[in-house]
Parts: sequence; C-alpha cells; structure tokens
Amino acid sequence: MTTSPETHQLPPDRAALSPASARQLFRDGLVVPTAGFSLGYAQANLIIVPKAQAFDVLLFAQRNPKSCPILGVLDAGEVSGELLHGGDIRTDVPAYIVYENGVKVAEPTDLSAYWRDDLVTFIVGCSFTFETALMEGGISVAHIDQGVNVPMYKSNIRSVSAGSMSGPMVVSMRPIPASQVADAVRITSRYPAVHGAPVHIGNPEELGITDLSKPDFGDPVQIPSGYIPVFWACGVTPQAAVMESKPVLAIGHAPGHMLITDAKDSNYLVP
Amino acid sequence: MTTSPETHQLPPDRAALSPASARQLFRDGLVVPTAGFSLGYAQANLIIVPKAQAFDVLLFAQRNPKSCPILGVLDAGEVSGELLHGGDIRTDVPAYIVYENGVKVAEPTDLSAYWRDDLVTFIVGCSFTFETALMEGGISVAHIDQGVNVPMYKSNIRSVSAGSMSGPMVVSMRPIPASQVADAVRITSRYPAVHGAPVHIGNPEELGITDLSKPDFGDPVQIPSGYIPVFWACGVTPQAAVMESKPVLAIGHAPGHMLITDAKDSNYLVP
Repeated sequence: MTTSPETHQLPPDRAALSPASARQLFRDGLVVPTAGFSLGYAQANLIIVPKAQAFDVLLFAQRNPKSCPILGVLDAGEVSGELLHGGDIRTDVPAYIVYENGVKVAEPTDLSAYWRDDLVTFIVGCSFTFETALMEGGISVAHIDQGVNVPMYKSNIRSVSAGSMSGPMVVSMRPIPASQVADAVRITSRYPAVHGAPVHIGNPEELGITDLSKPDFGDPVQIPSGYIPVFWACGVTPQAAVMESKPVLAIGHAPGHMLITDAKDSNYLVP
Repeated sequence: MTTSPETHQLPPDRAALSPASARQLFRDGLVVPTAGFSLGYAQANLIIVPKAQAFDVLLFAQRNPKSCPILGVLDAGEVSGELLHGGDIRTDVPAYIVYENGVKVAEPTDLSAYWRDDLVTFIVGCSFTFETALMEGGISVAHIDQGVNVPMYKSNIRSVSAGSMSGPMVVSMRPIPASQVADAVRITSRYPAVHGAPVHIGNPEELGITDLSKPDFGDPVQIPSGYIPVFWACGVTPQAAVMESKPVLAIGHAPGHMLITDAKDSNYLVP
C-alpha cells in the first residue's frame, strides 16, 4: 500500500498525547509529520536493513555520531522493544520509505508486506527531541509554528564511510533570531544523543545549499528578517547513504514522520 | 611468543612521553601497565575479533556504553588509523591476550603471529583517560601512587547481551577519601566516552565483590582508613563476555596494558 503523506489533519491535542496513544493513531492510519507530538518524549529516525548489511550500518552510525546517534537496536526480526513498549515497528510510524538498490520503490504506511525475519532495526536520535527544550527556553520553532514539516537538506559535508555505506550529511534547519542563536547552541549542546549542537550557523552556501526554499526533504519554512539559519545534523543521513550506496534493500521512515518513543527527552540530557 | 607481564621497570619520564614515543617503547618490548604514561592523552582498551563476529561485538558495545564506549574501529585487516598515527595495533600495546573458544591461550607482546586479514579492531575508552583530570582536581590515584596496575573485578551486574555476546560488567576500583568522593563523581561525569561517572560507590558486596584484595584482573591496592572504594565501568568487559560467550577467536589487551592513543583527554570532555 502506497499512500502520499499528509492525508490527515494534525490532531489538536497532539502535544499531550502519550507516546503509546500517538503510535496507536499512526497504526490506525494517520499520516502527518510528528513535530510537536507527545512533548517531552524522544522521537526517532529509523533505518532498517537485512542482517547482512547491519554491521556496515552500525559502524557508519558509530563513525558519524552527530548525524546517527543510535538510541536502540532491535535484533533481526524483532518488531518491538523497550523504546516502544507494546508497539510494532512495522506499523507505528506514520509513513516509511522502502529502497531497493538505493531507489525509492514505495512509501507505505505499514511495513507488513515488506517485513522479513532478517531485518535489523536501528532507532536513531532525532532533533525533534530537543525542540521542547528550545521552546521552554523561549525559542520558537518555525516549522511547528507554521504547521509544516522541518526543512532538511543534503549538505556538501561527507559522512565518514563504513564498509559499503557512504554519503552526504543531511542537515535540518531552524531559523533562530540572532539574539537567541547562542541560547539555541547552549540548549541543544546538552542533548548529544539527539544530534546535540548545530553543525553550522549562518551561511547555507558553505554547506552547498543554494536555495533554502527548496529543501531536499520536508517543507520550506518562512525565515523572518533578522533570523539566522541554524543547521543541525539529521537522522535522515543514513537514508542519503542508502541512496548513494545502493544496498539491495533498506527501509527508513518518511522524513519528519518519526517513531515516537517511550523515552523521555530528559533521558538524553547531559549535565 | 608469550611473555609474562611486568618484565621491565617503569620509565621515570613516562608521564611526559609522547604517545608515539610510548608506543615505540612497547613495540620495542617494554611490558608494563600504562597508567601514568603520556599524561593528557587518552588510553584505550582493545577487543579484536574476526569480521563474522564484529556485528555482535559492536552491538554489545552500543548496548553497554558505560563499559564499552567505542572510540574508533579499524576495518578488517587494518592495523593503523587516526588514533595511532604511524602505529601498528599488532605491536604497539605492551601485552595482549589471545582467546580461543573463550579460553586464554597466549599472552603475547606482539600479535604478528596471530594476525589475520579478517580481524576487526575495536578501540574502547579507558578510565585511565580521566585520571589526569582527577589528579589535577587534587585527587590522588592509589594505583599510580603505589606503582601497581589498577584493580579490576568481575561484578554481578550483567551486561546487556547482543547476539552471541553476554557476560558480567567488569569494574575498576579507586579508593577515594570520603571528602573527595563527590568531586571524583563530578570530574569523571564530564568524560562519558571514557566510562564517565562511577557505577557504584561504597559497598563492594552489593557488586558481588567479597574481597577487594583479590581482584580478578590487575593488582590489589592498599585502602587507607577513611577512604571509600569507588567503582567505574571497565573496558575489560568485552573480554569477560568473550570468556563467557566463547567465540572461536578473540584478542584483547592485557588488562591495564593499554593502547596509548594520539587523542587528547580533552577531546572526550563534555561541557
């Protein structure tokens, strides 16, 4: 089953939903970006590959901790675990992307038809996790305010390769008022397991990004005058490596459509 | 070649040696514990396994980040890398342990006779890295003062298993004056990539350790009256898993006899 994203409206109470309730909504068919859902709970990227490819993916993550911080790994064939109590990784994310030989072949909302017992699931930290902390620090998050998906770009920064896996670092962008950029760095630095401090501040062209209004993933956001574009490493990076490295099979989440985990954001806060 | 450890005297200038110079001494045959060498540079544990076992070891490390923080991975057959510029992982550690089916079969000072092109080397953080910071904080380190190897114990804390790998957490122990225990926690917390904060303070029996004078690895240290035994997760933990899990082949460093890397301790300091 292939469904185009954004076939549903954002639930008005999304911030207060428990992770299990949010996952149930997605299991029942809701397809929306997850920013702003279940505030206080960590959201996560997915990369799912056959066991034969799993060492390369895990090593790629180890070598690229800013973009690919691993929060958990489900063993081959496992569909649940402590990050999603009672959940099912095949159904509990709003939308997925299936890649064959590096090419997107489907964007299903349910992986049951694609599941194999040798599939290993990597659950990767997501910057949505620190957005609650940003907002509590008085920093508004443009894509939440504007009700769209976060803009993401393939940068010209190369990931460190690992075995068969190589590709560019994907970055997410949030426009921040110049007077609050230092606060945004300070706050996000304390969450190293969910991308941590920005990788770049202020000059998109240096990252090879020539037009902020045309993100490679997600939606463009309006950038008010006096706001600085701030870039964080993004957990879509493994999917960019899949596109370049062309493994026989790989499955990711649809960018911005994350797994909402049972782990609290504060679990990933360092002193 | 099998050599019993401690066949040489500690060099008097060991604290000031560059990492490359220290590695050269070990390459030339010096066999001593490395605590106190090359102050300011990170030391590391090793676990080396055939590629077929590498995913299980890397996943074990990911699931046990307190005991097995990965600083780097050398691809199958590689013997050098950015943590040991110009070095050779087969010769630059004072002594190694070779395990076959979980049983120690040799303790060589040179791995050349055991090397295979499918061996993957995992370089794992070591608590010796934060000893400089402890000493700069006015906290003396007993095993350095007493000129012996750090005492290490198999605890009753189980590591999280990964595939074929399971076993107990190994801990290192440093006696700390009661008035300085809080400082020791504060200082070491800032080094999460090299075991970070202690896992236990003050009651060895709760860890299943009945006699501190009989460590499972390393040497006993004298514990002055009024000192509290403080325990940190230890990078010998993968070797304890090897002993229990019995992979066909695995190679570690001799406990306390570490790889001295070119990375500065401060690389692993968090704010």
